[in-house]
Amino acid sequence: MSHLTPAARDAIEASDVVIGYRTYLDLIPELLEGREVISSQMMKEVDRSRQALDLAAAGRTVSLVSGGDPGIYAMAGLVFEMARESGEDLSFDIKVIPGIAALNACAARLGAPLMHDFAAISLSDLLTPWEVIERRLEAAAMADFVIVLYNPRSKKRTEQIVRAREIIMAHRSPETPVGIVTAATRENEEITLTSLGEMLSGEIGMQSCVVIGNSNTVRWHDFMVTPRGYRDKYTL
Amino acid sequence: MSHLTPAARDAIEASDVVIGYRTYLDLIPELLEGREVISSQMMKEVDRSRQALDLAAAGRTVSLVSGGDPGIYAMAGLVFEMARESGEDLSFDIKVIPGIAALNACAARLGAPLMHDFAAISLSDLLTPWEVIERRLEAAAMADFVIVLYNPRSKKRTEQIVRAREIIMAHRSPETPVGIVTAATRENEEITLTSLGEMLSGEIGMQSCVVIGNSNTVRWHDFMVTPRGYRDKYTL
Repeated sequence: MSHLTPAARDAIEASDVVIGYRTYLDLIPELLEGREVISSQMMKEVDRSRQALDLAAAGRTVSLVSGGDPGIYAMAGLVFEMARESGEDLSFDIKVIPGIAALNACAARLGAPLMHDFAAISLSDLLTPWEVIERRLEAAAMADFVIVLYNPRSKKRTEQIVRAREIIMAHRSPETPVGIVTAATRENEEITLTSLGEMLSGEIGMQSCVVIGNSNTVRWHDFMVTPRGYRDKYTL
Repeated sequence: MSHLTPAARDAIEASDVVIGYRTYLDLIPELLEGREVISSQMMKEVDRSRQALDLAAAGRTVSLVSGGDPGIYAMAGLVFEMARESGEDLSFDIKVIPGIAALNACAARLGAPLMHDFAAISLSDLLTPWEVIERRLEAAAMADFVIVLYNPRSKKRTEQIVRAREIIMAHRSPETPVGIVTAATRENEEITLTSLGEMLSGEIGMQSCVVIGNSNTVRWHDFMVTPRGYRDKYTL
């Protein structure tokens, strides 16, 4: 839990109830003592948010725990969507505590790939039409953004990453550095430095984030670095 | 310092020397005790990185402190650029500790604007040609990314934000929600919720981040929320 901020810790310690996916709650046993704990398995996000909102409406102080940053492709949005959908007046306060998102953690592990403009794109088409995702891949590739791919592949979704690479390859060299980070900051963390041409031979799964360099990104030792352009301005 | 992670704290505590911009070091006096401290004023990034690298090469353990996340438009890249430029073999280890970047903090303060694909774009044309920035603004606007603008305006650069809004307005309604967060998580933090049409009347400065919603982003109470699409899939 070396990336849990004091602000997040304080929020949990100020709560009566802590709700979260079991795997995350298991990481913070000392923060759960003396509190009501509602843990659940994967894929129950809607239930978890509903419970958090109901308990808050009943006057309890509730922490809904999310992995990474709750504000980046995570639980914060669902809570607001559901609260809004209920149509009732908001009788309690909702606060989002920022966290280290996968993109922050993966970038750090890879060196410094996000030194210039970047686009985060989720390849999951469960909630987003694939045409919209393709359009974003195309736009990001064309305009030379560093690209961070979330949800690149699962057991059932295996073709999206193949197609994404194809779209990006139309605009970028096969030598473009690519970093794959799986389970960043967790015990089973794995880091692979590869290239756009070779990336599909790397292990990419549900817990992976794939970072594709822009046209200036270089590989240097075991690092992936996107220069900002200081070299042209200063003598380094 | 409620957003300084234990990992960052540990890294500083394991160092012989701490180097950083004075304003940031002033926030962590208790971590500086008993260590050599090299603080400097704004705009000395190149000097700071050079010192950090020289001291590390001499065998010292050095922390180079950055605000936000050193890996997002910040110091990490410069360190790697300079180390690489020196042409020498790397005789020491370089580790990047991820942090809460402006985009994480600003998103949290605004509600949940980054629940869907987003692009981070810096409007500073000091190190990047303006044509490249315009092309990215155009691509991000066209493909309906949520857009996070870094370095939106300074005393000298006042026209970039005007032009950026114009480009985005060609693809998005003037009612699109926009959030402006200045000095996120600092004492002088300011949050403004406005719209693409009205955003230029808000206070935008050097320390601001501007978040422009996608075509689905809504304003709800004092929050800016980008729905993920759960509504279409589940009964909320």
